[in-house]
Amino acid sequence: MSGEFDLIAKYFSPLAAGVQGAFGLKDDVAAIAAGDLAVTKDLLVEGVHFRSRDPKECIARKALRVNLSDLAAKGARPFGYFLGCVWPAGVKESAIAEFAGGLRLDQDLFKIALFGGDTTAHVQKGAPLTVSVTMIGLQGPAGVIPRAGAQAGDDVYVSGTIGDAGLGLAALEGEFKLSPAHKAFLADRYRLPSPRLSLGGALSGHANSAIDVSDGLIADARHIATQSGVTIEIGAEKIPLSAPAKAWLGSLGDFESGIGRLATSGDDYEILFTAPSSRRRSIEMASQASKTAITRIGSVARGAGVKLITANGTEIAVAKGGFDHFGD
Amino acid sequence: MSGEFDLIAKYFSPLAAGVQGAFGLKDDVAAIAAGDLAVTKDLLVEGVHFRSRDPKECIARKALRVNLSDLAAKGARPFGYFLGCVWPAGVKESAIAEFAGGLRLDQDLFKIALFGGDTTAHVQKGAPLTVSVTMIGLQGPAGVIPRAGAQAGDDVYVSGTIGDAGLGLAALEGEFKLSPAHKAFLADRYRLPSPRLSLGGALSGHANSAIDVSDGLIADARHIATQSGVTIEIGAEKIPLSAPAKAWLGSLGDFESGIGRLATSGDDYEILFTAPSSRRRSIEMASQASKTAITRIGSVARGAGVKLITANGTEIAVAKGGFDHFGD
Repeated sequence: MSGEFDLIAKYFSPLAAGVQGAFGLKDDVAAIAAGDLAVTKDLLVEGVHFRSRDPKECIARKALRVNLSDLAAKGARPFGYFLGCVWPAGVKESAIAEFAGGLRLDQDLFKIALFGGDTTAHVQKGAPLTVSVTMIGLQGPAGVIPRAGAQAGDDVYVSGTIGDAGLGLAALEGEFKLSPAHKAFLADRYRLPSPRLSLGGALSGHANSAIDVSDGLIADARHIATQSGVTIEIGAEKIPLSAPAKAWLGSLGDFESGIGRLATSGDDYEILFTAPSSRRRSIEMASQASKTAITRIGSVARGAGVKLITANGTEIAVAKGGFDHFGD
Repeated sequence: MSGEFDLIAKYFSPLAAGVQGAFGLKDDVAAIAAGDLAVTKDLLVEGVHFRSRDPKECIARKALRVNLSDLAAKGARPFGYFLGCVWPAGVKESAIAEFAGGLRLDQDLFKIALFGGDTTAHVQKGAPLTVSVTMIGLQGPAGVIPRAGAQAGDDVYVSGTIGDAGLGLAALEGEFKLSPAHKAFLADRYRLPSPRLSLGGALSGHANSAIDVSDGLIADARHIATQSGVTIEIGAEKIPLSAPAKAWLGSLGDFESGIGRLATSGDDYEILFTAPSSRRRSIEMASQASKTAITRIGSVARGAGVKLITANGTEIAVAKGGFDHFGD
């Protein structure tokens, strides 16, 4: 294994090549000349946010994408990131190389660059890989789309499909058996989320509030409801589902408990947002311009909390609205 | 133990109270309206960068200070930070409260605010506390002081005293016995570095190159030498030492090996910098204005590498110039 500085020079400095202000990762800070920035920071921990057996390339890409998703939901345009890694004791250089390869793929895909960071290793045997990313972007022309802006009367929308990642994780953990094609699709949705950057940018100036769905649709709707001081009602049958999720739900034979599970499983990384109903045409155009499917799933009213309601008016009880790392 | 969002609301949101663009830590991103920024990110891992028994308050403050030190060395003025914590499984709420108390102390002391971040917990029993900080500041009027700017003919200076933190750690680990007062002084230097922010700001526009001493005086001098394409010669007797370090060195009875150890132990968080000898008056004024002691310890010449030389011309062999997390 090479030393720390060799590893940085070999695998990480190339990811910052030619980036003004990154100093080739050879200085203590990055110097960013910029206007109004949007910044986010998300940590991923082995065993918590990804599985030990997940390919390193996927872990790297997911670490970038969950942060990109935060910026997407706020209508911001990412341009660079800082990376902190704590590797397991005795990590093989090939693992770091594979990880850096994943970063490179997504840097090219999302047009972002590495500006700096920190690479270290655990001394404790078996301690988990931990990846910390701080992602920096430029705010949209109307500023960031807040969580706290939902208004009574707003429509509620979500991009893409909901519940795939949770099913993918459960399938990987062997909870149930799916066709190989469905399992592969859902596992991919778990391992490699698609940050909705184009949609987020197009929503800037139109959406009143937005959040990316990481804790689960209901839990994240609750964040908007709480911050905005409103209630959000979501139609259970309106929640967009992928074909594999529909197949799973059909085979389950219990719509209410199935949709409840899909709406409370995390890691979707879709955008949940609200907009005035007078803006339906603009929202439709934002979806078309960004080539990103969206679905109108509910509405905002005065009050508090989130309700998941079936077409015949039954409220589906949702015991717990999302994963909590410290919950009892 | 409260849940994740309760913990954030109780301990961390108050640290972001009233901060424009931090949204009370209740949104996905922070929005920073700013000019030319300097950004740095350093991770601290239990067992690597701090001891398991260190008070949580100290760990929090050290995590901020090692990042503040990076900005100090670059002449930048910090204004805010992002925090990522991975707590051990089953962490007690009192530990988080104590940690947040440490953050508050140093926020007030250094006039910085929390802008956002991520709080999570290990699922694996015994996995170490990991703290990731991204610190954001404004560049000085002359931009950041680079590592790569040292010129042949420059003087080499260092602030404060060298080797205290390494001795403090060794004393805490029981490697040798010191008087209680000396042990307390050195342990404090290890646990709670003093970022030299005033000095760094005053050096902007005067120093040609700078770095904060985290890997060790010789290792960090080597970073400057390598990035600048020069050689740096340091006078062994000129290295500034605290009274407890002098006492330890005297009791050791072997100046060369003792000073070699002090010059290669890490965690000093002093500023090592170079400046043209024509600027000696300005550098002296920067020291006085910032009330920070500095010592001229060497000079820059054409060539490569770093030499530690005694007054009678002997070169002290330094086997390894700093701690490497991946070294063999």
